[in-house]
Amino acid sequence: VARIAIIGLGLIGGSLGLALKRANIDGLEIAGFDAEWGVGGRARKRGAIDHEPRGLRATVEGAAIVIIATPISQIPSVLEEIASALGEHAIVTDTASTKADVMRWAEGALPPPVSFVGGHPIAGKEQGGIDNADASLFEGRPWAVIPSVRASEEAVRAVENLVALTGAHAVLVDAAEHDSYLAAVSHLPLIVATALFSLASGSRAWPELAQLAGPGFRDTTRLASTSPDLSHDIALTNRAHLLHWLDRMIEELGRVRATLAGEEADKQLAELFARVQAERDAFLARPPEHPGPARPAADLSARERMAAFLIGEYALRRTKEVQEMIERGERRREGER
Amino acid sequence: VARIAIIGLGLIGGSLGLALKRANIDGLEIAGFDAEWGVGGRARKRGAIDHEPRGLRATVEGAAIVIIATPISQIPSVLEEIASALGEHAIVTDTASTKADVMRWAEGALPPPVSFVGGHPIAGKEQGGIDNADASLFEGRPWAVIPSVRASEEAVRAVENLVALTGAHAVLVDAAEHDSYLAAVSHLPLIVATALFSLASGSRAWPELAQLAGPGFRDTTRLASTSPDLSHDIALTNRAHLLHWLDRMIEELGRVRATLAGEEADKQLAELFARVQAERDAFLARPPEHPGPARPAADLSARERMAAFLIGEYALRRTKEVQEMIERGERRREGER
Repeated sequence: VARIAIIGLGLIGGSLGLALKRANIDGLEIAGFDAEWGVGGRARKRGAIDHEPRGLRATVEGAAIVIIATPISQIPSVLEEIASALGEHAIVTDTASTKADVMRWAEGALPPPVSFVGGHPIAGKEQGGIDNADASLFEGRPWAVIPSVRASEEAVRAVENLVALTGAHAVLVDAAEHDSYLAAVSHLPLIVATALFSLASGSRAWPELAQLAGPGFRDTTRLASTSPDLSHDIALTNRAHLLHWLDRMIEELGRVRATLAGEEADKQLAELFARVQAERDAFLARPPEHPGPARPAADLSARERMAAFLIGEYALRRTKEVQEMIERGERRREGER
Repeated sequence: VARIAIIGLGLIGGSLGLALKRANIDGLEIAGFDAEWGVGGRARKRGAIDHEPRGLRATVEGAAIVIIATPISQIPSVLEEIASALGEHAIVTDTASTKADVMRWAEGALPPPVSFVGGHPIAGKEQGGIDNADASLFEGRPWAVIPSVRASEEAVRAVENLVALTGAHAVLVDAAEHDSYLAAVSHLPLIVATALFSLASGSRAWPELAQLAGPGFRDTTRLASTSPDLSHDIALTNRAHLLHWLDRMIEELGRVRATLAGEEADKQLAELFARVQAERDAFLARPPEHPGPARPAADLSARERMAAFLIGEYALRRTKEVQEMIERGERRREGER
């Protein structure tokens, strides 16, 4: 029996539990914990976790992998509390939307033999919480994986396997890259959506504006409905990168303003809109290849790799080799007939 | 037999034809024209129009209502060409996304007995063209109606009826209000989405950014995939209002920037995100009441009202009164039993 612990059973933690249960790995047990009363019970009823031990420390005891899926601001206290209850070679990962602070907190809080590998599934839904958890939430999505300096090869491999089991694909990046990239394509859009909605809703003409607002306004401002706690934590833990991209966005809007007010607006706007539409269509038509883990791919399926990690990779590989020898022998014999 | 003419059979013109055919009004014939070869034939095959007369002038001849659903930039030449072919009391309307220029063009081009009533259905789809036309495109959507100074009461009522038949609700505004409101909730979001996508796709890190872009980035930048010709026409025909709102957006982002960089970021960001999320949730939960036409509602259904306009309101009202008298008489007799 191998144990995985999930701390925080909201949309992400709950969906991760459901996805792992769906992978149907022999001998896998999932323990879960949520600070909010009743959430653990609902997660158990939905089949996202098997056990709901009493308290944080009991939840992580004996766990091979611990996944922290709480709000970002709670991660430091969770790390502090679980540190001395972790098994010696436990692997700890998380699902937070920003990474530099989390990596620093983990390095400060966890004892050396424990491997921390940061994680961030790029997936979500408008409605959060365990009741909206979904086993297929991560399918086809990127999942950023950020190894800490002290993390073992085996730990990184285990987190990649975990990611593959959910149907997502691991994208290995370092924390600074992650936070800069996400600032551009996630956190800046969040700020822009919030500012755009706030500008409209703060106008004296808001009743009239709202009456004429169509699906374009809804889509462009959708991120303004992100949980305020999450938005707040993201902005504060990715402040420097966000300020950088926010400045560039203000400059970009200034350039568009100059074009619109300028004498060559007719020609230049035609070029701008045509170029951006073509680029976006190309982006939608063939999203960039994800090169996959930057290490040699094992010749095992994700499920086999997870099982390999849990039951011992050598034993599984040996079993597989033996099976292949038998199959090859059988084929040879078939060819001889 | 009464005739409606639709000029321009793209997504909007085609969907309007389908919606009107679905309303199943006795004696209604729809003539259609599109400058692009083959589009008229496809519209006829899809049942969006009945006839495809040869040329623009033949299409509007004898039409009670002419709907111009071409790109904005083509409206002046369409008005010019049809002006002398219109029946004396013809009603002309349009579906353009901006209104002040269109109202001016119509006033300059159309002879006085013709009534022009501007229109703008707030509806659309990512994919345009007759092949994506949809009879239910306008259901539950606002449709701005902008009477010209010279438009008769009857003409305004007829356009409102037309709107009601599609399942949309008419919102009466003047052209300047319309263009200012739409600049805020539609054209500014278009510019913001374009700038946001352009900023990301113009970055040297775009391959990495694209790899980590999730559904939030897609939704926030969706409007950047608007047809470049449409975006261009909107920006140029609503330049002044758009510049005003673009300046306010740049100021708003500057304020958010100051908050994020400031010493009270923690508290102030929490307030900002909580306020905007609550306002957006309220907006989604109960969209503002649409007060409906600012004139006494007739005691006829939309279908009856359109038929009334087409076959003569008096006759229909009289028929209805007679039917009601008969029903009342029957009920009285039933009560006497």
